[in-house]
This record gives sequence, structure tokens and C-alpha cells, in this order.
Amino acid sequence: MRVLIANRGEIALRVLRACRELGMEAVVAHSAADAGSAAVRAADQAFCIGPGPAAQSYLSIGALMTAVRATGADAVHPGYGFLSESASFADACAEAGVRFVGPGAGAIRLMGDKISARRVAEEASVPVVPGRVLGADAGEAAAVIRSMGGSVLVKAAAGGGGRGMRLVDADGSSDDSSDGSSDDIAAAVELARAEASAAFSDGTLYAERYVARGRHVEVQVFGTADGVVGLGERDCSVQRRHQKLIEESPCGVLDAGARDAMRAAAVRLAERVGYRGAGTVEFLWDLDAGAFFFLEMNTRLQVEHGVTEMRTGVDIVRQQLLLAATGSCELDAARPPQSRGHVIEARVLAEDPTRGFRPTPGRVTRFRPPAGPGVRVDTALGPGDDVPPYYDSLIAKVVVEATTREHAISRMRRALDEFEIEGVHTTLTTLDEVLGSEAFRADEHTTSWFDRAHGIH
Amino acid sequence: MRVLIANRGEIALRVLRACRELGMEAVVAHSAADAGSAAVRAADQAFCIGPGPAAQSYLSIGALMTAVRATGADAVHPGYGFLSESASFADACAEAGVRFVGPGAGAIRLMGDKISARRVAEEASVPVVPGRVLGADAGEAAAVIRSMGGSVLVKAAAGGGGRGMRLVDADGSSDDSSDGSSDDIAAAVELARAEASAAFSDGTLYAERYVARGRHVEVQVFGTADGVVGLGERDCSVQRRHQKLIEESPCGVLDAGARDAMRAAAVRLAERVGYRGAGTVEFLWDLDAGAFFFLEMNTRLQVEHGVTEMRTGVDIVRQQLLLAATGSCELDAARPPQSRGHVIEARVLAEDPTRGFRPTPGRVTRFRPPAGPGVRVDTALGPGDDVPPYYDSLIAKVVVEATTREHAISRMRRALDEFEIEGVHTTLTTLDEVLGSEAFRADEHTTSWFDRAHGIH
Repeated sequence: MRVLIANRGEIALRVLRACRELGMEAVVAHSAADAGSAAVRAADQAFCIGPGPAAQSYLSIGALMTAVRATGADAVHPGYGFLSESASFADACAEAGVRFVGPGAGAIRLMGDKISARRVAEEASVPVVPGRVLGADAGEAAAVIRSMGGSVLVKAAAGGGGRGMRLVDADGSSDDSSDGSSDDIAAAVELARAEASAAFSDGTLYAERYVARGRHVEVQVFGTADGVVGLGERDCSVQRRHQKLIEESPCGVLDAGARDAMRAAAVRLAERVGYRGAGTVEFLWDLDAGAFFFLEMNTRLQVEHGVTEMRTGVDIVRQQLLLAATGSCELDAARPPQSRGHVIEARVLAEDPTRGFRPTPGRVTRFRPPAGPGVRVDTALGPGDDVPPYYDSLIAKVVVEATTREHAISRMRRALDEFEIEGVHTTLTTLDEVLGSEAFRADEHTTSWFDRAHGIH
Repeated sequence: MRVLIANRGEIALRVLRACRELGMEAVVAHSAADAGSAAVRAADQAFCIGPGPAAQSYLSIGALMTAVRATGADAVHPGYGFLSESASFADACAEAGVRFVGPGAGAIRLMGDKISARRVAEEASVPVVPGRVLGADAGEAAAVIRSMGGSVLVKAAAGGGGRGMRLVDADGSSDDSSDGSSDDIAAAVELARAEASAAFSDGTLYAERYVARGRHVEVQVFGTADGVVGLGERDCSVQRRHQKLIEESPCGVLDAGARDAMRAAAVRLAERVGYRGAGTVEFLWDLDAGAFFFLEMNTRLQVEHGVTEMRTGVDIVRQQLLLAATGSCELDAARPPQSRGHVIEARVLAEDPTRGFRPTPGRVTRFRPPAGPGVRVDTALGPGDDVPPYYDSLIAKVVVEATTREHAISRMRRALDEFEIEGVHTTLTTLDEVLGSEAFRADEHTTSWFDRAHGIH
């Protein structure tokens, strides 16, 4: 099989390595800004799909389909981000007669819309956060929100990543003002709708009960021909502005009963839509209620998939490629793999923590990643490589495995301390501060803990 | 605890990382040739123990005890090689009141001598290769050998690594001549004795039945306060002149019964001598007889310990340090850890395969080790570092984990292909040839396969 990798950075190299180990050809589609990248250098074939800005390259279905035709690829791996959750891209691949390494366009569409995803969850008896779709009229929307009571989160139905999101107090004030009238709530709704329209070309809003002390816990699933395998959970509660910084498995606040129930719920949901391949079902764990609620399903490989790989020994990308090539893979739904020890991932970003985490693209002059027992580093960078200004600031994922959470934390701190990067600013010190903090060590943090500790609203 | 690391290269860095993760201070004792090494750069404290040649530094008990006193170390980790199996060094540490990270001097002495080790094995009902100690008279020795019949291996009782070793045909010719008389055998014995005396200051010889088609299989054990834990076996049959090139676990030629029996035998032997800490019991698996025989016990950390670490998730060096510091560790003799998947290690040497594997010390100008899922690289080298001419030629150990042997082989070949080293010659291509060979892939190689395939006698 000849696989076109429609992505960049560490994930392009990750997919390329899996291709190589399977004896598959790897074609790397890249922007002009990434022409000298590690994935391009290692590729069997490379094809430039356009200039640096993603809209003209990694987000251009037309450019990518040109690359597919020109290189004679049989399959496309979209990685994460960019077009990985684009049903239109999956459709385009199907029309061109090449395999899209992901679920069918139907599952992407169904899960990509928060409202239909929520309906599927309810049909699969998966708990959802109490909530309602808001109509177009802001006044009516405000009335719906007031009827819900307490704190209410207004979200874009089509989106994610915090855009189009507003927290309002249905009993009083929104987070933008101290007044608390219906007018204020209506104003907050209008702002959220404007943001949602701009970001996702869809102003549909959704209001749900706000969980004040929550943990983000997600379950990795993999749909095979014989059923869906649950590969365990990841706790991703250390977040800056809804962006994950640190992920770990197992999640320490779940007891065995809750863990099993959450995994079963995720498998049920994926089976309900006949899910094939790698996917992640995200839940909110309410620390006060001791209960979990479905948030959304990501119909693609996740940035933090390596956490599950290290804990289970399963190569998830390999399973994706095998499934696309042969219709079957090495996983057996009847015998899910056992997990082992404790795994933590830290995302190293090219950002300046002393200047509001401003991205700092540039040339890396020194780059020596950590190594040794129980340490995996996924990165595409080396000395002399550039961090282009066009893309997200992730430059390396450090994943560590140990028998206990305490050892995993000390191992991660040892690894981050070893990491030598010069030429760009990084979040290495920030990550070390989190790992050394009382809240994280005691496993008492929540999804809003990092932002609050850093004065981020 | 302040730990003096009495070693160099990748193992010094390995021990240092374990110290750091335990919050212990790491003091690196180094030769002048290693003053710029990674371990020295990372150390809390470094102490130069002498010039490059090992006899004047890493093998000098006096120099090391001076370092212990000067740095105020509480413990000494000897790594492998050098003084790691020196009972005198363990004694010197005890006299100085510092902890030797290893078993007691008694166990080192008992196992360091092949004849007493064999006696202990017999006492512990561990099968040994049929054999006899040879007396001082060469003529009498020849008669003993002739009485054994078949092929007989004459070995130095005090040594290892092939020195003082001769294969003789007790029914006919020795490997040095085609005549086969008692005189020829006596001559071979004299040569072996001279080599043994020169290498080990002890000319005692031992004759044992030669196993023509054998596999080298060893069991990693760890003695805790409550008993000895068996951590699984490693097959180390790919050898060049008795030096291991590639190790793997599990050993594919053992069935479950043989594997369990071998592990139990190793545990029994270690328990017989009240063994504490990390040790390795080496066996010869006779492919024709389908039986194993005790070879020797290494009373120290093994080069290939990472194979077992990756397969079990246990950090063996951490357990050594915990045991030395507190008298207990994280292992439970009643619940040995489970093993997972298939692990292979390849030793990358700074040698020139095109010139008889001649060592090629020098300056490394480019050094980019492989990475990604299931790959661990233990090395102390980076770009600009030197490979000194004084020590063994090991520059990196690549260890890979996968769910099957087939995937582990393809992952290792991918990793070796990624490895970029310039400035010194390496055995990367040799390792890849082994991994791609019919014999290795079919798991049909023996301990003499590599030498025969390369015309080495």
C-alpha cells in the first residue's frame, strides 16, 4: 500500500514510521514551509501541496487530491487536526477511489455535530450533561438558560477549542458583566453566536449545565470488523484555555467501577454508529457528583494516543493502517489488551511562558531530547530545523512509563530536565512547575486549575 | 544517598538517571579520557580517578576508594564490566563503610569461580553440563578428556569471554590439528592453560561436554529481602567470538514447560546462595537434546538488562539502588511481574565490519539516534563527543518492544535505518544483515551461527 500522509510535524513522522514497519510506501504531502522537515527527508516520496499557510496546503482538499493523483497513493492518513475530521475530505477520497484512514464519512458527520452526537449518546444510554439547543432568538435563548438555573455553558454546536464558548450564571450574572439580567444573558449569547459563526460558519448554539469541578477523561476506542475494543482512559485535565498540556493514564480519581462503566459507555457509543478504526470518546467527570457525562467523540487519531500505546503496548497507528489495507488488524474485540503501570505525556510547545505563552517560531539551534528507560519522545525536530510560524506550537511530546504515578512524575521531571532546546522558547519550565505542584501531585487539580493558577480567564 | 558511579559510557548515564529519579545524588568517577562525557556533564559531582587506560582508573580499587572518600559517597554502583564482579572491590567498600550496589562479596566469590558455581548448581538441583576439573598434568588431563568422548570444551575455570578456551575432539582430532592423538589433546590443554594463566592469573582448567547446536539463554533474577524474583529469560545466541550482538525475550525455542523450569532453576540457584540484588543465571539450551544446562552466574547488572526492563516494565537499576538504600525494593517475590510482547536489543559498536570488526575510536561528528513508539536507545554519545580508544566499542544499545517477534524485527530494522552516526564506523549494517537473515527470522540460529556465516574461527 502507498500511503499519502496529509499532515506535518511529529505526527507525519509517527505515521511514516508505522508505514515503514509495515513495509508500506510513505508519501509525505507538505507545504513549502515544511520542505526541509524530517518527514519529508525520510519519505519514499514527497509532494509539495502549496505555500505555508494551512488554508492553502494542509486544509486544501483540492491540493491534497492533486497530490493523491500525482503520487499514485492508495490511501490517505490525515493525522490529527487539519482535515482529519472533515467528512468532505473522506468523501473526496472515496470518490477518487483511495482509502481514507479513518471512520466512514457518516460517522464523522454524525459525531462532528454536537447535537447529533448527543442524540446518539442518549440512544446508546450514555449519560450526557443536561442541556438544550438554543433557538435563533437571543431573548428566547436567555429565557431557556434562566430556566436551567445555576451556571450554564453556552457552546458552539459545530466547534471546539473554546471558540464560541461563554459561561453564564442563569441565576444572576454572566462572566462578562455583574448585572445578571436577561438582557445580559442575551448579550452573552449574541457574542457567542458571532464567535461561532466566524469560527465554524455555523452559529448554532448549545447550552449545558456547567460542571464547576470537573476532570476531562477520555476513552480510546478502536473499531474492528468484529466489534469495538476499549483501550483504557486518559485524564487530560491539565489544560490552558481548553488546550491539553499534560495527559495521563490511568485517571486517579476513578474507582474500578467508574472506570469500567466509562469504558463500557464509550464502547457502546462507538458500536452504536458501527465505528471503525481509532476514535476517542471524551467525558467530563464531575468531581462533586462522582459521575461522568459524554462531551464529544473525536473521530480520528488523538495527539495523546501515545499514552495509550505505552500503557497497552498496542501500536494504534499500525492498527489503523492494517485495517485500511486489509480490513482487519491485530486487535481482538473479545480480548482487549491489558494495561500496565502509569503513563504521563507532556506537550512541549514553542511558546514563551514569560510573555503570555506567545508562540515563538524560529530556528532550533540545539536540540537534544531526553532518553533512557521508560521515556518516549515524539518529535520531528533536530538541530538546524525551523519551527514555522503557520501552525500550532507543538514541537515534542514526551511520554513516560513507570510502575507508579509517583515514579512516572519523577521520571518525567528527570526527562524534561534533560531536554536541551535552544533557538526557540519552550514551555519546559511550565510543565515542570505543573508536575512539581501540590495540586497535581495530590491529583486534586481540575480542568480550570491551570488557568486559575496562571490568572487566565 | 550519594552514589558514586564507578563506570563510564551509557551505563554511567543509565545509573545516573535512576539516581535522579530517586532524588539521590550522583557522583561520576571518570578517567581523564572521559572528562567531557555526558555522564560527567550531567553529574552532581565528578571526580577524575586517573588516566585513560582502565588499569589506571576504572580497574583501580585504590583510585576509586580515594574518590569515595573525597566525594563523601554513601554507596558505589559498579555498573557492568570493570570491577562489577570484583569481590575485593566489594570488600574494600565494606571496609570503607560504603554500600556496594551488588550482592555480598561471598556470593561474588562463590559464583565467580566456575568450579564452586557448578557445585552450588548441583546442590540446587540445577542441571550442569557433564564435565570435570582437569589436573595439572597435561597427559592425565588428556586421558580424562578422552574418557569423556565426543567433543569436549576446555575452559579456564576463572575466566570468560573465550580466553583460555579450546574445543577438542576426544575421539579424534582437536580443532588445532588433524591427528587426534593423546599428545595433540595434551598440547591443546597446554595452550589453553597458558592463555588462562595469562588472562586470569589462574591456569585451572575445566573440561565439559561440547554442545554443537546450542542457544545461550539466561534468566534475570533479583534477590529481595523476602526471596528471589525471576524476571524472565533472554536469548543471547547471536554472538561474535562469544560476544553478544543481539538479545531478545522471550526465547522462541523454549516451550512453556522449559521456560518455567529454567526460571525456577535460576531462582533456586540464587536462593541457595541468599542472593541479593540483580543477577543473571546463564544457561546453554541444547537444541538437539531439548534440555538446558547451567553455564555461569553473573553477579551484577547485565549489559542487556534493558530487554527485561522493557518487557516487564520493571526498572532494575532503581530496584538495585532502593535495595542498597533501604533494604527493600518495589519487587515482591510472591508476585513476579508479568511480561509483555517481544523485545529485541541490538548492540551498536564502533567497529568496522569491512575490516574484521576492528575498533574505530574517534570523534563522532553526527549522531541522531532513532526514536518513536517502542524504541529505547541507551547511549552516552552526542555530536562532537569522542569514542576513546581505551575501552570496549559499545556506543549504543537500541531496544525495541512490539507485540510479536515479527513486528519487533521490523521495528528494529526501521530504528537501525533511522540511526545517523558519522565520524566513526559502526556495526549498524551488520546488525541489519542479521535481522534480515533467513536463519534469524526463522529463529533457527545457534551461538556459532554468526561466526560461521562470517568465516570467524
